[in-house]
Amino acid sequence: MAKKQRPAQAQKKSGGKAKASAALKAVIDELVMGNRILYVQDVVDGYGHISARHPHHPDRFLMSRARAPGLVVASDIMEFGLDGELIGDDARPVYSERFIHSEVYKARSDVNAVVHSHSPTVVPFSVTQVPLRPIRAAFFYPEVPVFDTRTSAGWTNLLISNAALGKALAQTLGRNSVALMRGHGNVVVAPSVRVVVYRAIYTEANARLLLQAKMLGGPITYLAPEEAALMDKEQSRHRPGHGHDRTWEMWKQEALARTGKL
Amino acid sequence: MAKKQRPAQAQKKSGGKAKASAALKAVIDELVMGNRILYVQDVVDGYGHISARHPHHPDRFLMSRARAPGLVVASDIMEFGLDGELIGDDARPVYSERFIHSEVYKARSDVNAVVHSHSPTVVPFSVTQVPLRPIRAAFFYPEVPVFDTRTSAGWTNLLISNAALGKALAQTLGRNSVALMRGHGNVVVAPSVRVVVYRAIYTEANARLLLQAKMLGGPITYLAPEEAALMDKEQSRHRPGHGHDRTWEMWKQEALARTGKL
Amino acid sequence: MAKKQRPAQAQKKSGGKAKASAALKAVIDELVMGNRILYVQDVVDGYGHISARHPHHPDRFLMSRARAPGLVVASDIMEFGLDGELIGDDARPVYSERFIHSEVYKARSDVNAVVHSHSPTVVPFSVTQVPLRPIRAAFFYPEVPVFDTRTSAGWTNLLISNAALGKALAQTLGRNSVALMRGHGNVVVAPSVRVVVYRAIYTEANARLLLQAKMLGGPITYLAPEEAALMDKEQSRHRPGHGHDRTWEMWKQEALARTGKL
Amino acid sequence: MAKKQRPAQAQKKSGGKAKASAALKAVIDELVMGNRILYVQDVVDGYGHISARHPHHPDRFLMSRARAPGLVVASDIMEFGLDGELIGDDARPVYSERFIHSEVYKARSDVNAVVHSHSPTVVPFSVTQVPLRPIRAAFFYPEVPVFDTRTSAGWTNLLISNAALGKALAQTLGRNSVALMRGHGNVVVAPSVRVVVYRAIYTEANARLLLQAKMLGGPITYLAPEEAALMDKEQSRHRPGHGHDRTWEMWKQEALARTGKL
Repeated sequence: MAKKQRPAQAQKKSGGKAKASAALKAVIDELVMGNRILYVQDVVDGYGHISARHPHHPDRFLMSRARAPGLVVASDIMEFGLDGELIGDDARPVYSERFIHSEVYKARSDVNAVVHSHSPTVVPFSVTQVPLRPIRAAFFYPEVPVFDTRTSAGWTNLLISNAALGKALAQTLGRNSVALMRGHGNVVVAPSVRVVVYRAIYTEANARLLLQAKMLGGPITYLAPEEAALMDKEQSRHRPGHGHDRTWEMWKQEALARTGKL
Repeated sequence: MAKKQRPAQAQKKSGGKAKASAALKAVIDELVMGNRILYVQDVVDGYGHISARHPHHPDRFLMSRARAPGLVVASDIMEFGLDGELIGDDARPVYSERFIHSEVYKARSDVNAVVHSHSPTVVPFSVTQVPLRPIRAAFFYPEVPVFDTRTSAGWTNLLISNAALGKALAQTLGRNSVALMRGHGNVVVAPSVRVVVYRAIYTEANARLLLQAKMLGGPITYLAPEEAALMDKEQSRHRPGHGHDRTWEMWKQEALARTGKL
Repeated sequence: MAKKQRPAQAQKKSGGKAKASAALKAVIDELVMGNRILYVQDVVDGYGHISARHPHHPDRFLMSRARAPGLVVASDIMEFGLDGELIGDDARPVYSERFIHSEVYKARSDVNAVVHSHSPTVVPFSVTQVPLRPIRAAFFYPEVPVFDTRTSAGWTNLLISNAALGKALAQTLGRNSVALMRGHGNVVVAPSVRVVVYRAIYTEANARLLLQAKMLGGPITYLAPEEAALMDKEQSRHRPGHGHDRTWEMWKQEALARTGKL
Repeated sequence: MAKKQRPAQAQKKSGGKAKASAALKAVIDELVMGNRILYVQDVVDGYGHISARHPHHPDRFLMSRARAPGLVVASDIMEFGLDGELIGDDARPVYSERFIHSEVYKARSDVNAVVHSHSPTVVPFSVTQVPLRPIRAAFFYPEVPVFDTRTSAGWTNLLISNAALGKALAQTLGRNSVALMRGHGNVVVAPSVRVVVYRAIYTEANARLLLQAKMLGGPITYLAPEEAALMDKEQSRHRPGHGHDRTWEMWKQEALARTGKL
């Protein structure tokens, strides 16, 4: 693994107070860990990405340079504006699909973290008529819509590689937490890095449960919207030892064991 | 991994004779190992828990503080009463669903160990009409009932977070060894930690076999109740080198290799 | 892992010439490696066993004491007669199902190695009406029969724990290389340890292929008996770098990496 | 792992300029890494092979001696002519199915790398009537034909062990990038080692997606040929940080971690 270097952002001296830098550093650290966790939990493979809204500049977001998530270190994190433009000078390659992130941050002020993945059991739901409904994933309500580039833009290479496609995807996502992308993957959003990682992992887990339930056959008892609302209320509170705090401790340990030091 | 510390229980000086402490220490050691084994065998992920009845106080049980099972060490083990109340002073967070354990111990004097998990292939059986029947798991007899919070308590967050829900679940469990919890997981009970670990692992294994048999299609030859009775008689005897003694040796080695020292 | 000790057999001084001991040692070494390989390749879990006919005494066979295969070392290997009786003095527990091995060696002089496993994708074929037919496993011809204790002996605990049940199983096996055991597992036989390990692993692999082909639906093109005969002729020759020689080198390396030194 | 040795080719002094040797060494290094990657990514097990056209002699190709791909080191690489004949003196065993490679190189001047594997989820498509169509794998166009030795040569052992069978397979492959081999495996071709590795891995991945989509049931939205053409154009450009360059960095790291130094 590459040696840990000071992130590009931290090296810029433009206006950061000591406190600001600490908050930024914390988000970058979580973002790096989120990259590793999503890789170790098999949500991303060589592709896919995770971003976080900038803690001091709500019109910017942080994301790795174009690199496999399992290899990301702090110095890979770059800063982007809400039109997907790179902030600052940096010659390193950037993700073509950064517009997924920029357009979601533009449309959803409640969102501070975004994951785009090709999570393997989720893709089949994007190419069939079977809706991805919740067995355990409360955050699937109101619904998990499917975005198809074909509907918005005709024949494309399926990549969300410009602002217009990003905007169309964000519109399909609407107020939901997850949207599928036909023949491609999905996008998951949340108020924080930890919650978006949690949701991305349990999106895949719920897809597996639903696939298996379909294989057993017969009617399926889904989580009711009333139940989901109560679960989500519980899960969105941060409580030490509970919810995503408990899994983050474990996933972090697993990620460090498999991918080495930050 | 955290360093091994003396368990909170062992530090209390209230009335323990040397012999008593050795028995308690043995149960705590098995409980820690059971946590690790269930994690390494993919029965629990970040959630789920295992408890043991207190060897000297049948109206108490031992269980970790609220923590991912794969990370549990001896100092995490706490003591609870049969109303789910914490025994002694301890500010650390506790599992919300400890009432699964307390109410089962209250209702079943034959039970000395309880596992609650979200064992992945078992959940689909909880949301379909397909009963989880035994192909190899003799302990599925008389039956594997399904508990639904909706029936007992209407709209909830599905967690068994109070004594009333725990009692309703224990009633559904009845004299059986396994009960499913709709859209959530299952509870497995046994006379000892080693047997409950064995049963939890083979509950998942039997679910996988049954799912695959369903995929092949056509009628399935289940284990007959007469066969199960003979198997269970064999399996409940403790014989060195046989039954759960043989698998415990292997699982223990695998757990130590993956999760480090106790 | 336990330290390597001289096997019990090698310690007996009854009549072994230097050459005899080398041949015996070679078989014991392969048997230990076979145990580890079957474990690492997920054919056996805590249960299952592999044996080899004694190279100097065709009326005896070698097999581990009752222990999880992944943990077996040379000193665990014991010697048995063809009625399943232990040869020599040894107080350590023995596998209850050694009669699978003894009765197959009695009935099949062409067989020098036997595996009994609960190979996970094979069991579903033992409880449905779907025959386990060859997609790639040439050694499935003439057929893969299913043995059911219920037919031979009524209600039992399903274990082949006496000579009568072993004999009935050997009769069902007939001249075939694999027989399934309803709700339990399978038995695989071959002229050598390396070939029986190869067959046990590809029995599981073929079961997975067939299950997936069934899931795709429609007619399946099986390996024709004429093709299987030509493949089997090729595979039963020992050629360095080909067939089971090639896989043994890889499996051995994987087994040593995962389970430590012999 | 074996120590790294100078490849046999590099030891021959026939006519290599310094520059030529560097290009050859680069291809051999990629070929060794490709072997390891395909093993670690579960595309090959003990069997299967990958070759590359010789960078200076288009009528030759490079491939390992007959050995499990996960164990291949640079000194295992041999040189073959387009009739499958070994170039130079070498007594080590060679792959029986080298004619898959020789005949494809003969027929397709655009191809510089070939993989033959038994990729596990692809085989079921070779024995059913379900075509392997693209959900994400753009390189499946024009189509993924199925080759059956039975059609070309009647009863065989299914191995492509002579030039006539290799030629028939190459004819079935035609201008496509992937062809299935009934009851056996598949062949994948590409302009370079990195791209053929990428395609072999995503052939398996697409087969898994399609199998799961089939299990969900109902109509499936495949990648349109127009979309595939746009994707393939994008993917065939070499861009640092993108496409196969991004995954190669990760796969290489995973392969080195699992299989040791080159």
